[in-house]
Amino acid sequence: KPSSTLRAPAMPDAAVAPAPEMPQREVARALADQAVARLAPRLLPSAVPDDVAEFRNGAGNAVGSLDVRRGAPGSSIDFMLQSSLHCKVPNGAIDITSILIFLNAATDAPHFLLELIQGSPTSIVVLLDLLPRKDLSLHPDYLQKYYENTQIDEQRAKIEELPQARPYRSPSLFVRSAFSPTAVMVTIDCGQGGEGTLEEIVHGRLAAVAKEVLQIWLDCCAESTTAMDDIERDCLLKRDQIVRSKSIEVDLTASLPRMFDPDVSSHVISEIRKAFGLQEP
Amino acid sequence: KPSSTLRAPAMPDAAVAPAPEMPQREVARALADQAVARLAPRLLPSAVPDDVAEFRNGAGNAVGSLDVRRGAPGSSIDFMLQSSLHCKVPNGAIDITSILIFLNAATDAPHFLLELIQGSPTSIVVLLDLLPRKDLSLHPDYLQKYYENTQIDEQRAKIEELPQARPYRSPSLFVRSAFSPTAVMVTIDCGQGGEGTLEEIVHGRLAAVAKEVLQIWLDCCAESTTAMDDIERDCLLKRDQIVRSKSIEVDLTASLPRMFDPDVSSHVISEIRKAFGLQEP
Repeated sequence: KPSSTLRAPAMPDAAVAPAPEMPQREVARALADQAVARLAPRLLPSAVPDDVAEFRNGAGNAVGSLDVRRGAPGSSIDFMLQSSLHCKVPNGAIDITSILIFLNAATDAPHFLLELIQGSPTSIVVLLDLLPRKDLSLHPDYLQKYYENTQIDEQRAKIEELPQARPYRSPSLFVRSAFSPTAVMVTIDCGQGGEGTLEEIVHGRLAAVAKEVLQIWLDCCAESTTAMDDIERDCLLKRDQIVRSKSIEVDLTASLPRMFDPDVSSHVISEIRKAFGLQEP
Repeated sequence: KPSSTLRAPAMPDAAVAPAPEMPQREVARALADQAVARLAPRLLPSAVPDDVAEFRNGAGNAVGSLDVRRGAPGSSIDFMLQSSLHCKVPNGAIDITSILIFLNAATDAPHFLLELIQGSPTSIVVLLDLLPRKDLSLHPDYLQKYYENTQIDEQRAKIEELPQARPYRSPSLFVRSAFSPTAVMVTIDCGQGGEGTLEEIVHGRLAAVAKEVLQIWLDCCAESTTAMDDIERDCLLKRDQIVRSKSIEVDLTASLPRMFDPDVSSHVISEIRKAFGLQEP
Protein backbone atom coordinates (compact mmCIF):
# COMPACT_ATOMS: atom_id res chain seq x y z
CA LYS A 1 0.00 0.00 0.00
CA PRO A 2 1.58 3.28 -1.01
CA SER A 3 0.04 5.12 1.91
CA SER A 4 2.23 3.16 4.33
CA THR A 5 5.28 4.82 2.75
CA LEU A 6 3.71 8.15 3.57
CA ARG A 7 3.55 7.27 7.22
CA ALA A 8 7.10 5.90 7.39
CA PRO A 9 9.33 7.51 10.01
CA ALA A 10 11.51 10.39 8.89
CA MET A 11 14.52 9.33 6.86
CA PRO A 12 17.82 11.15 6.70
CA ASP A 13 17.93 13.64 3.81
CA ALA A 14 20.43 11.55 1.88
CA ALA A 15 17.84 8.79 1.49
CA VAL A 16 15.33 11.08 -0.26
CA ALA A 17 15.40 10.94 -4.03
CA PRO A 18 15.95 14.30 -5.74
CA ALA A 19 12.94 15.88 -7.42
CA PRO A 20 12.35 14.08 -10.71
CA GLU A 21 13.12 15.88 -13.93
CA MET A 22 9.88 17.07 -15.48
CA PRO A 23 9.24 18.91 -18.76
CA GLN A 24 7.89 22.02 -17.03
CA ARG A 25 11.07 22.26 -14.96
CA GLU A 26 13.15 22.58 -18.13
CA VAL A 27 10.74 25.21 -19.41
CA ALA A 28 11.01 27.18 -16.16
CA ARG A 29 14.80 26.91 -16.21
CA ALA A 30 14.97 28.24 -19.76
CA LEU A 31 12.70 31.16 -18.78
CA ALA A 32 14.77 31.94 -15.71
CA ASP A 33 17.91 31.95 -17.89
CA GLN A 34 16.18 34.25 -20.36
CA ALA A 35 15.24 36.66 -17.55
CA VAL A 36 18.62 36.55 -15.85
CA ALA A 37 20.46 37.12 -19.13
CA ARG A 38 18.70 40.44 -19.40
CA LEU A 39 18.35 41.43 -15.76
CA ALA A 40 21.61 40.14 -14.27
CA PRO A 41 23.16 43.56 -13.60
CA ARG A 42 20.03 44.48 -11.65
CA LEU A 43 19.79 41.29 -9.57
CA LEU A 44 21.59 40.64 -6.31
CA PRO A 45 22.89 37.13 -5.59
CA SER A 46 20.50 34.57 -4.16
CA ALA A 47 19.38 35.48 -0.66
CA VAL A 48 17.88 32.34 0.83
CA PRO A 49 19.47 30.03 3.44
CA ASP A 50 20.63 26.60 2.24
CA ASP A 51 17.79 24.80 4.01
CA VAL A 52 15.29 26.84 2.00
CA ALA A 53 17.18 26.68 -1.28
CA GLU A 54 16.34 22.99 -1.06
CA PHE A 55 14.02 21.40 1.47
CA ARG A 56 12.42 18.06 2.08
CA ASN A 57 9.76 16.40 4.10
CA GLY A 58 10.76 14.12 6.99
CA ALA A 59 8.59 11.36 5.54
CA GLY A 60 10.60 11.49 2.32
CA ASN A 61 7.63 12.08 0.08
CA ALA A 62 8.17 15.74 -0.74
CA VAL A 63 11.00 17.90 -2.00
CA GLY A 64 11.09 21.58 -2.82
CA SER A 65 13.37 24.40 -3.83
CA LEU A 66 13.19 28.17 -3.51
CA ASP A 67 15.42 30.83 -4.92
CA VAL A 68 14.94 34.54 -4.32
CA ARG A 69 17.09 37.26 -5.84
CA ARG A 70 16.33 40.81 -4.77
CA GLY A 71 16.69 43.68 -7.20
CA ALA A 72 19.85 45.76 -6.92
CA PRO A 73 19.44 49.14 -5.21
CA GLY A 74 18.24 51.74 -7.70
CA SER A 75 16.69 49.19 -10.07
CA SER A 76 12.95 48.81 -10.54
CA ILE A 77 13.17 45.06 -9.81
CA ASP A 78 11.82 44.15 -6.40
CA PHE A 79 12.62 40.43 -6.55
CA MET A 80 12.77 37.37 -8.76
CA LEU A 81 11.42 34.22 -7.13
CA GLN A 82 11.68 30.70 -8.50
CA SER A 83 10.24 27.73 -6.73
CA SER A 84 9.42 24.11 -7.28
CA LEU A 85 7.45 21.80 -5.06
CA HIS A 86 7.10 18.09 -5.67
CA CYS A 87 5.06 15.83 -3.44
CA LYS A 88 4.24 12.16 -3.87
CA VAL A 89 0.64 11.34 -3.04
CA PRO A 90 -1.03 7.93 -2.91
CA ASN A 91 -2.18 8.11 -6.54
CA GLY A 92 0.75 9.93 -8.10
CA ALA A 93 2.42 13.27 -7.43
CA ILE A 94 1.65 16.97 -7.25
CA ASP A 95 4.19 19.27 -8.80
CA ILE A 96 4.17 23.09 -8.68
CA THR A 97 6.66 25.24 -10.59
CA SER A 98 6.62 29.03 -10.24
CA ILE A 99 8.50 32.04 -11.51
CA LEU A 100 7.53 35.47 -10.21
CA ILE A 101 9.36 38.67 -11.10
CA PHE A 102 7.91 41.58 -9.15
CA LEU A 103 8.69 45.24 -9.63
CA ASN A 104 8.91 47.95 -6.99
CA ALA A 105 7.30 51.36 -6.73
CA ALA A 106 9.80 52.96 -9.12
CA THR A 107 7.32 51.83 -11.79
CA ASP A 108 3.68 50.88 -12.06
CA ALA A 109 4.40 48.35 -14.83
CA PRO A 110 2.93 44.85 -14.41
CA HIS A 111 4.69 41.98 -12.65
CA PHE A 112 5.55 38.72 -14.44
CA LEU A 113 3.97 35.52 -13.17
CA LEU A 114 4.13 31.91 -14.29
CA GLU A 115 2.71 29.04 -12.29
CA LEU A 116 2.44 25.44 -13.50
CA ILE A 117 0.54 23.00 -11.35
CA GLN A 118 0.63 19.38 -12.39
CA GLY A 119 -1.73 17.09 -10.51
CA SER A 120 -1.56 14.11 -12.85
CA PRO A 121 0.82 12.87 -15.56
CA THR A 122 -1.66 13.90 -18.25
CA SER A 123 -2.87 17.32 -17.12
CA ILE A 124 -1.42 20.62 -16.02
CA VAL A 125 -2.84 23.96 -14.85
CA VAL A 126 -1.15 26.97 -16.43
CA LEU A 127 -1.27 30.48 -14.97
CA LEU A 128 0.71 32.98 -17.02
CA ASP A 129 0.22 36.72 -16.84
CA LEU A 130 1.55 40.20 -16.66
CA LEU A 131 -0.16 41.00 -13.35
CA PRO A 132 -1.67 44.48 -13.55
CA ARG A 133 -0.86 46.94 -10.77
CA LYS A 134 -3.60 49.45 -11.49
CA ASP A 135 -7.38 49.28 -11.81
CA LEU A 136 -7.79 48.67 -15.53
CA SER A 137 -11.31 50.10 -15.65
CA LEU A 138 -10.11 53.36 -14.16
CA HIS A 139 -6.96 53.47 -16.30
CA PRO A 140 -7.70 52.51 -19.92
CA ASP A 141 -4.38 54.10 -20.92
CA TYR A 142 -2.57 51.52 -18.75
CA LEU A 143 -4.56 48.72 -20.38
CA GLN A 144 -3.68 50.07 -23.77
CA LYS A 145 0.02 50.51 -23.03
CA TYR A 146 0.77 47.12 -21.53
CA TYR A 147 -1.93 44.85 -22.90
CA GLU A 148 -3.24 46.23 -26.20
CA ASN A 149 -0.12 47.74 -27.73
CA THR A 150 1.94 44.66 -26.82
CA GLN A 151 -0.61 42.37 -28.54
CA ILE A 152 -0.12 39.98 -25.67
CA ASP A 153 -3.65 38.64 -26.08
CA GLU A 154 -2.43 36.72 -29.13
CA GLN A 155 -0.29 34.64 -26.79
CA ARG A 156 -3.30 33.76 -24.62
CA ALA A 157 -5.20 32.74 -27.74
CA LYS A 158 -2.39 30.39 -28.82
CA ILE A 159 -2.82 28.40 -25.61
CA GLU A 160 -6.61 28.54 -25.46
CA GLU A 161 -6.99 27.29 -29.01
CA LEU A 162 -5.38 23.99 -28.03
CA PRO A 163 -8.12 21.36 -28.10
CA GLN A 164 -6.82 20.06 -24.76
CA ALA A 165 -7.24 23.45 -23.03
CA ARG A 166 -10.25 24.44 -20.94
CA PRO A 167 -10.65 27.41 -18.62
CA TYR A 168 -9.19 27.08 -15.14
CA ARG A 169 -11.19 28.96 -12.52
CA SER A 170 -9.27 29.55 -9.35
CA PRO A 171 -11.54 28.83 -6.39
CA SER A 172 -10.37 32.21 -5.06
CA LEU A 173 -12.32 35.09 -6.57
CA PHE A 174 -9.54 37.38 -5.39
CA VAL A 175 -6.94 35.52 -7.45
CA ARG A 176 -9.24 35.62 -10.47
CA SER A 177 -9.75 39.35 -10.16
CA ALA A 178 -6.03 40.04 -9.69
CA PHE A 179 -5.22 38.69 -13.16
CA SER A 180 -5.35 40.69 -16.38
CA PRO A 181 -7.92 40.08 -19.14
CA THR A 182 -5.13 38.56 -21.24
CA ALA A 183 -4.03 36.05 -18.60
CA VAL A 184 -3.59 32.41 -19.53
CA MET A 185 -5.64 30.48 -16.95
CA VAL A 186 -6.23 27.02 -18.32
CA THR A 187 -6.13 23.34 -17.54
CA ILE A 188 -4.44 21.41 -20.32
CA ASP A 189 -5.90 17.95 -20.01
CA CYS A 190 -4.65 15.32 -22.46
CA GLY A 191 -6.80 12.49 -21.10
CA GLN A 192 -5.93 8.89 -20.47
CA GLY A 193 -2.71 7.85 -22.15
CA GLY A 194 -1.91 11.48 -22.96
CA GLU A 195 1.47 11.69 -21.17
CA GLY A 196 3.35 12.06 -24.45
CA THR A 197 0.95 14.67 -25.81
CA LEU A 198 1.23 16.72 -22.62
CA GLU A 199 5.01 16.60 -22.74
CA GLU A 200 4.91 17.73 -26.35
CA ILE A 201 2.61 20.66 -25.51
CA VAL A 202 4.71 21.73 -22.51
CA HIS A 203 7.95 21.61 -24.50
CA GLY A 204 6.31 23.05 -27.59
CA ARG A 205 3.43 25.50 -27.50
CA LEU A 206 3.59 26.32 -23.79
CA ALA A 207 7.36 26.91 -23.77
CA ALA A 208 7.07 29.15 -26.84
CA VAL A 209 4.19 31.21 -25.46
CA ALA A 210 5.78 31.63 -22.02
CA LYS A 211 9.00 32.74 -23.68
CA GLU A 212 7.13 35.27 -25.78
CA VAL A 213 5.19 36.65 -22.80
CA LEU A 214 8.41 36.97 -20.79
CA GLN A 215 10.06 38.73 -23.72
CA ILE A 216 7.20 41.25 -23.89
CA TRP A 217 7.57 41.80 -20.16
CA LEU A 218 11.36 42.23 -20.42
CA ASP A 219 10.96 44.70 -23.29
CA CYS A 220 8.05 46.76 -21.95
CA CYS A 221 7.99 46.45 -18.17
CA ALA A 222 11.21 45.26 -16.55
CA GLU A 223 13.23 48.39 -17.15
CA SER A 224 10.49 50.99 -17.01
CA THR A 225 10.14 53.77 -14.49
CA THR A 226 6.96 55.75 -13.95
CA ALA A 227 6.60 59.33 -12.75
CA MET A 228 4.02 59.30 -9.95
CA ASP A 229 2.79 61.80 -7.42
CA ASP A 230 2.52 60.79 -3.77
CA ILE A 231 -1.16 59.85 -3.98
CA GLU A 232 -0.58 57.60 -6.98
CA ARG A 233 2.42 55.95 -5.32
CA ASP A 234 0.49 55.39 -2.07
CA CYS A 235 -2.36 53.77 -3.98
CA LEU A 236 0.09 51.57 -5.92
CA LEU A 237 1.86 50.49 -2.74
CA LYS A 238 -1.40 49.75 -0.98
CA ARG A 239 -2.73 47.71 -3.92
CA ASP A 240 0.59 45.84 -4.27
CA GLN A 241 0.52 45.04 -0.56
CA ILE A 242 -3.03 43.68 -0.66
CA VAL A 243 -2.41 41.57 -3.75
CA ARG A 244 0.81 40.18 -2.28
CA SER A 245 -0.62 39.27 1.09
CA LYS A 246 -3.84 37.83 -0.34
CA SER A 247 -2.00 35.75 -2.90
CA ILE A 248 0.34 34.31 -0.31
CA GLU A 249 -2.63 33.49 1.89
CA VAL A 250 -4.51 31.75 -0.92
CA ASP A 251 -1.60 30.12 -2.64
CA LEU A 252 1.46 29.18 -0.64
CA THR A 253 0.15 29.10 2.89
CA ALA A 254 -2.53 26.80 1.51
CA SER A 255 -0.33 24.31 -0.34
CA LEU A 256 3.00 24.26 1.49
CA PRO A 257 1.67 22.96 4.83
CA ARG A 258 -0.18 20.20 3.03
CA MET A 259 3.05 19.01 1.42
CA PHE A 260 5.71 19.60 4.08
CA ASP A 261 6.19 19.26 7.83
CA PRO A 262 5.06 22.35 9.75
CA ASP A 263 8.59 23.51 10.66
CA VAL A 264 9.77 23.20 7.05
CA SER A 265 6.76 24.91 5.54
CA SER A 266 6.71 27.76 8.04
CA HIS A 267 10.43 28.35 7.45
CA VAL A 268 9.91 28.47 3.68
CA ILE A 269 6.79 30.64 3.94
CA SER A 270 8.73 33.04 6.11
CA GLU A 271 11.38 33.44 3.37
CA ILE A 272 8.67 34.02 0.78
CA ARG A 273 7.01 36.62 3.00
CA LYS A 274 10.34 38.38 3.27
CA ALA A 275 10.67 38.45 -0.51
CA PHE A 276 7.13 39.80 -0.79
CA GLY A 277 8.00 42.56 1.69
CA LEU A 278 5.37 41.33 4.13
CA GLN A 279 7.84 40.53 6.88
CA GLU A 280 11.00 42.21 8.10
CA PRO A 281 14.11 40.57 6.58
CA LYS B 1 -30.65 36.35 -53.74
CA PRO B 2 -31.34 37.54 -50.20
CA SER B 3 -28.83 40.36 -50.53
CA SER B 4 -31.04 42.05 -53.13
CA THR B 5 -33.69 42.52 -50.43
CA LEU B 6 -31.10 44.36 -48.37
CA ARG B 7 -30.55 46.83 -51.14
CA ALA B 8 -34.25 47.40 -51.81
CA PRO B 9 -35.43 51.00 -51.55
CA ALA B 10 -36.84 52.15 -48.22
CA MET B 11 -40.34 50.85 -47.53
CA PRO B 12 -42.97 52.57 -45.42
CA ASP B 13 -42.81 51.39 -41.79
CA ALA B 14 -46.11 49.56 -42.10
CA ALA B 15 -44.53 47.12 -44.53
CA VAL B 16 -41.82 46.07 -42.09
CA ALA B 17 -42.58 42.92 -40.17
CA PRO B 18 -42.44 43.27 -36.39
CA ALA B 19 -39.41 41.74 -34.66
CA PRO B 20 -39.95 37.99 -34.49
CA GLU B 21 -40.71 36.42 -31.14
CA MET B 22 -37.57 34.74 -29.85
CA PRO B 23 -36.99 32.72 -26.67
CA GLN B 24 -34.49 35.24 -25.26
CA ARG B 25 -37.07 38.01 -25.65
CA GLU B 26 -39.43 36.16 -23.35
CA VAL B 27 -36.62 35.63 -20.88
CA ALA B 28 -35.75 39.33 -20.96
CA ARG B 29 -39.39 40.30 -20.52
CA ALA B 30 -39.75 38.06 -17.49
CA LEU B 31 -36.59 39.57 -15.97
CA ALA B 32 -37.79 43.10 -16.63
CA ASP B 33 -41.10 42.24 -14.94
CA GLN B 34 -39.21 40.75 -11.98
CA ALA B 35 -37.15 43.95 -11.65
CA VAL B 36 -40.05 46.32 -12.09
CA ALA B 37 -42.19 44.42 -9.56
CA ARG B 38 -39.57 45.25 -6.96
CA LEU B 39 -38.33 48.63 -8.15
CA ALA B 40 -41.52 50.21 -9.48
CA PRO B 41 -41.87 52.88 -6.76
CA ARG B 42 -38.33 53.98 -7.55
CA LEU B 43 -38.68 54.12 -11.34
CA LEU B 44 -40.02 57.05 -13.32
CA PRO B 45 -42.15 56.36 -16.42
CA SER B 46 -40.42 55.60 -19.69
CA ALA B 47 -38.51 58.59 -21.00
CA VAL B 48 -37.80 57.88 -24.64
CA PRO B 49 -39.55 59.42 -27.68
CA ASP B 50 -41.84 57.14 -29.69
CA ASP B 51 -39.42 56.91 -32.60
CA VAL B 52 -36.80 55.47 -30.25
CA ALA B 53 -39.17 53.23 -28.30
CA GLU B 54 -39.45 51.40 -31.63
CA PHE B 55 -37.32 52.05 -34.68
CA ARG B 56 -36.70 50.48 -38.06
CA ASN B 57 -34.37 50.58 -40.94
CA GLY B 58 -35.51 52.17 -44.20
CA ALA B 59 -34.52 49.03 -46.07
CA GLY B 60 -36.92 47.03 -43.92
CA ASN B 61 -34.31 44.56 -42.72
CA ALA B 62 -33.86 45.78 -39.15
CA VAL B 63 -36.12 46.61 -36.22
CA GLY B 64 -35.22 47.73 -32.71
CA SER B 65 -36.71 48.91 -29.46
CA LEU B 66 -35.35 50.91 -26.54
CA ASP B 67 -36.91 51.69 -23.22
CA VAL B 68 -35.24 53.79 -20.54
CA ARG B 69 -36.73 54.47 -17.13
CA ARG B 70 -34.78 56.82 -14.88
CA GLY B 71 -34.64 56.28 -11.15
CA ALA B 72 -36.96 58.44 -9.05
CA PRO B 73 -35.28 61.35 -7.24
CA GLY B 74 -33.81 60.18 -3.95
CA SER B 75 -33.52 56.53 -5.03
CA SER B 76 -30.19 54.84 -5.72
CA ILE B 77 -31.39 53.73 -9.19
CA ASP B 78 -29.82 55.72 -11.99
CA PHE B 79 -31.70 54.06 -14.87
CA MET B 80 -33.11 50.81 -16.20
CA LEU B 81 -32.51 50.27 -19.89
CA GLN B 82 -34.04 47.53 -22.03
CA SER B 83 -33.27 47.16 -25.67
CA SER B 84 -33.67 44.73 -28.51
CA LEU B 85 -32.12 44.88 -31.94
CA HIS B 86 -33.01 42.51 -34.74
CA CYS B 87 -31.39 42.66 -38.14
CA LYS B 88 -31.77 40.30 -41.08
CA VAL B 89 -28.51 39.52 -42.79
CA PRO B 90 -27.93 37.49 -45.96
CA ASN B 91 -27.43 34.24 -44.07
CA GLY B 92 -29.90 34.70 -41.24
CA ALA B 93 -30.34 37.34 -38.55
CA ILE B 94 -28.48 39.04 -35.72
CA ASP B 95 -30.46 39.61 -32.57
CA ILE B 96 -29.27 41.52 -29.48
CA THR B 97 -31.30 41.71 -26.26
CA SER B 98 -30.06 43.81 -23.31
CA ILE B 99 -31.16 44.74 -19.82
CA LEU B 100 -29.01 47.16 -17.84
CA ILE B 101 -29.94 48.49 -14.41
CA PHE B 102 -27.38 51.04 -13.30
CA LEU B 103 -27.10 52.63 -9.87
CA ASN B 104 -26.05 56.16 -9.01
CA ALA B 105 -23.49 57.52 -6.58
CA ALA B 106 -25.76 57.03 -3.55
CA THR B 107 -24.22 53.55 -3.47
CA ASP B 108 -21.12 51.79 -4.72
CA ALA B 109 -23.02 48.50 -5.22
CA PRO B 110 -22.61 46.75 -8.58
CA HIS B 111 -24.83 47.39 -11.61
CA PHE B 112 -26.89 44.61 -13.20
CA LEU B 113 -26.15 43.66 -16.82
CA LEU B 114 -27.56 41.05 -19.17
CA GLU B 115 -26.75 40.92 -22.86
CA LEU B 116 -27.76 38.12 -25.22
CA ILE B 117 -26.34 38.18 -28.73
CA GLN B 118 -27.68 35.62 -31.15
CA GLY B 119 -25.83 35.37 -34.43
CA SER B 120 -27.27 32.07 -35.61
CA PRO B 121 -30.34 29.95 -34.79
CA THR B 122 -28.16 27.48 -32.91
CA SER B 123 -25.82 29.68 -30.88
CA ILE B 124 -26.00 32.61 -28.50
CA VAL B 125 -23.48 34.74 -26.61
CA VAL B 126 -24.43 35.36 -22.98
CA LEU B 127 -23.03 38.21 -20.88
CA LEU B 128 -24.49 38.28 -17.39
CA ASP B 129 -22.89 40.06 -14.47
CA LEU B 130 -23.07 42.27 -11.47
CA LEU B 131 -20.67 44.88 -12.85
CA PRO B 132 -18.25 45.92 -10.12
CA ARG B 133 -17.81 49.63 -9.44
CA LYS B 134 -14.62 49.40 -7.44
CA ASP B 135 -11.17 47.92 -8.03
CA LEU B 136 -11.59 44.43 -6.61
CA SER B 137 -7.87 43.97 -5.96
CA LEU B 138 -7.77 47.10 -3.85
CA HIS B 139 -11.06 46.34 -2.08
CA PRO B 140 -11.26 42.66 -1.07
CA ASP B 141 -14.10 43.58 1.34
CA TYR B 142 -16.19 44.69 -1.66
CA LEU B 143 -15.42 41.42 -3.43
CA GLN B 144 -16.43 39.51 -0.34
CA LYS B 145 -19.64 41.43 0.23
CA TYR B 146 -21.10 41.30 -3.25
CA TYR B 147 -19.48 38.26 -4.85
CA GLU B 148 -18.38 35.81 -2.15
CA ASN B 149 -21.14 36.21 0.44
CA THR B 150 -23.83 36.08 -2.25
CA GLN B 151 -22.40 32.83 -3.66
CA ILE B 152 -23.09 34.20 -7.09
CA ASP B 153 -20.23 32.17 -8.56
CA GLU B 154 -22.47 29.10 -8.32
CA GLN B 155 -24.72 30.68 -10.94
CA ARG B 156 -21.78 31.16 -13.32
CA ALA B 157 -20.81 27.54 -12.82
CA LYS B 158 -24.33 26.35 -13.73
CA ILE B 159 -23.98 27.93 -17.17
CA GLU B 160 -20.35 26.99 -17.75
CA GLU B 161 -20.97 23.35 -16.95
CA LEU B 162 -23.30 23.09 -19.94
CA PRO B 163 -21.53 20.93 -22.54
CA GLN B 164 -22.55 23.49 -25.19
CA ALA B 165 -20.87 26.39 -23.38
CA ARG B 166 -17.41 27.71 -24.19
CA PRO B 167 -15.76 30.92 -23.02
CA TYR B 168 -16.63 34.06 -24.91
CA ARG B 169 -13.76 36.55 -25.09
CA SER B 170 -14.87 40.02 -25.99
CA PRO B 171 -12.44 41.44 -28.56
CA SER B 172 -12.32 44.50 -26.29
CA LEU B 173 -9.87 44.04 -23.41
CA PHE B 174 -11.60 46.94 -21.69
CA VAL B 175 -14.94 45.13 -21.68
CA ARG B 176 -13.26 42.00 -20.36
CA SER B 177 -11.62 43.85 -17.52
CA ALA B 178 -14.83 45.69 -16.58
CA PHE B 179 -16.58 42.42 -15.70
CA SER B 180 -16.39 40.67 -12.34
CA PRO B 181 -14.63 37.32 -11.80
CA THR B 182 -18.06 35.70 -11.47
CA ALA B 183 -19.39 37.02 -14.79
CA VAL B 184 -21.03 34.64 -17.22
CA MET B 185 -19.26 35.26 -20.54
CA VAL B 186 -19.97 32.30 -22.78
CA THR B 187 -21.02 31.23 -26.22
CA ILE B 188 -23.65 28.51 -26.05
CA ASP B 189 -23.28 26.68 -29.33
CA CYS B 190 -25.63 23.77 -29.97
CA GLY B 191 -24.23 22.91 -33.40
CA GLN B 192 -26.02 21.96 -36.58
CA GLY B 193 -29.64 21.05 -35.97
CA GLY B 194 -29.44 22.37 -32.42
CA GLU B 195 -32.26 24.96 -32.66
CA GLY B 196 -34.47 22.99 -30.27
CA THR B 197 -31.67 22.39 -27.79
CA LEU B 198 -30.77 26.07 -27.75
CA GLU B 199 -34.38 27.05 -27.16
CA GLU B 200 -34.56 24.57 -24.30
CA ILE B 201 -31.39 25.98 -22.72
CA VAL B 202 -32.53 29.60 -23.09
CA HIS B 203 -35.95 28.87 -21.58
CA GLY B 204 -34.49 26.49 -19.00
CA ARG B 205 -31.04 26.88 -17.50
CA LEU B 206 -30.32 30.38 -18.79
CA ALA B 207 -33.66 31.82 -17.68
CA ALA B 208 -33.27 30.26 -14.24
CA VAL B 209 -29.70 31.51 -13.76
CA ALA B 210 -30.49 35.03 -14.99
CA LYS B 211 -33.48 35.16 -12.65
CA GLU B 212 -31.31 34.04 -9.73
CA VAL B 213 -28.58 36.59 -10.50
CA LEU B 214 -31.17 39.38 -10.79
CA GLN B 215 -32.70 38.27 -7.48
CA ILE B 216 -29.28 38.48 -5.78
CA TRP B 217 -28.83 41.94 -7.26
CA LEU B 218 -32.31 43.05 -6.14
CA ASP B 219 -31.70 41.73 -2.62
CA CYS B 220 -28.11 42.96 -2.11
CA CYS B 221 -27.51 45.92 -4.41
CA ALA B 222 -30.63 47.64 -5.72
CA GLU B 223 -31.68 49.25 -2.49
CA SER B 224 -28.33 49.79 -0.86
CA THR B 225 -26.74 53.09 0.03
CA THR B 226 -23.07 53.54 0.86
CA ALA B 227 -21.47 56.10 3.11
CA MET B 228 -18.56 57.62 1.17
CA ASP B 229 -16.25 60.56 1.66
CA ASP B 230 -15.68 63.00 -1.17
CA ILE B 231 -12.55 61.30 -2.44
CA GLU B 232 -14.26 57.92 -2.60
CA ARG B 233 -17.29 59.37 -4.35
CA ASP B 234 -15.11 61.23 -6.88
CA CYS B 235 -13.24 58.03 -7.66
CA LEU B 236 -16.50 56.11 -8.05
CA LEU B 237 -17.96 58.76 -10.35
CA LYS B 238 -14.82 58.88 -12.44
CA ARG B 239 -14.69 55.11 -12.78
CA ASP B 240 -18.41 54.91 -13.61
CA GLN B 241 -17.97 57.57 -16.25
CA ILE B 242 -15.06 55.80 -17.92
CA VAL B 243 -16.79 52.41 -17.90
CA ARG B 244 -19.98 53.94 -19.31
CA SER B 245 -18.33 55.88 -22.10
CA LYS B 246 -15.97 53.03 -23.06
CA SER B 247 -18.76 50.46 -23.11
CA ILE B 248 -20.96 52.64 -25.32
CA GLU B 249 -18.03 53.17 -27.65
CA VAL B 250 -17.26 49.47 -27.90
CA ASP B 251 -20.77 48.12 -27.84
CA LEU B 252 -23.59 50.25 -29.21
CA THR B 253 -21.77 52.75 -31.35
CA ALA B 254 -20.16 49.71 -32.96
CA SER B 255 -23.28 47.64 -33.66
CA LEU B 256 -26.13 50.13 -34.16
CA PRO B 257 -24.69 51.89 -37.24
CA ARG B 258 -24.06 48.52 -38.85
CA MET B 259 -27.74 47.58 -38.46
CA PHE B 260 -29.61 50.87 -38.95
CA ASP B 261 -29.54 53.94 -41.16
CA PRO B 262 -27.24 56.68 -39.83
CA ASP B 263 -30.05 59.04 -38.77
CA VAL B 264 -31.87 56.26 -36.88
CA SER B 265 -28.76 54.91 -35.16
CA SER B 266 -27.45 58.34 -34.16
CA HIS B 267 -30.87 59.23 -32.73
CA VAL B 268 -30.99 56.01 -30.69
CA ILE B 269 -27.36 56.34 -29.56
CA SER B 270 -28.10 59.86 -28.41
CA GLU B 271 -30.94 58.56 -26.18
CA ILE B 272 -28.65 55.88 -24.75
CA ARG B 273 -25.96 58.47 -24.08
CA LYS B 274 -28.51 60.52 -22.19
CA ALA B 275 -29.45 57.53 -20.05
CA PHE B 276 -25.76 56.89 -19.38
CA GLY B 277 -25.34 60.50 -18.29
CA LEU B 278 -22.83 61.14 -21.04
CA GLN B 279 -24.91 63.79 -22.78
CA GLU B 280 -27.21 66.55 -21.54
CA PRO B 281 -30.87 65.44 -21.56
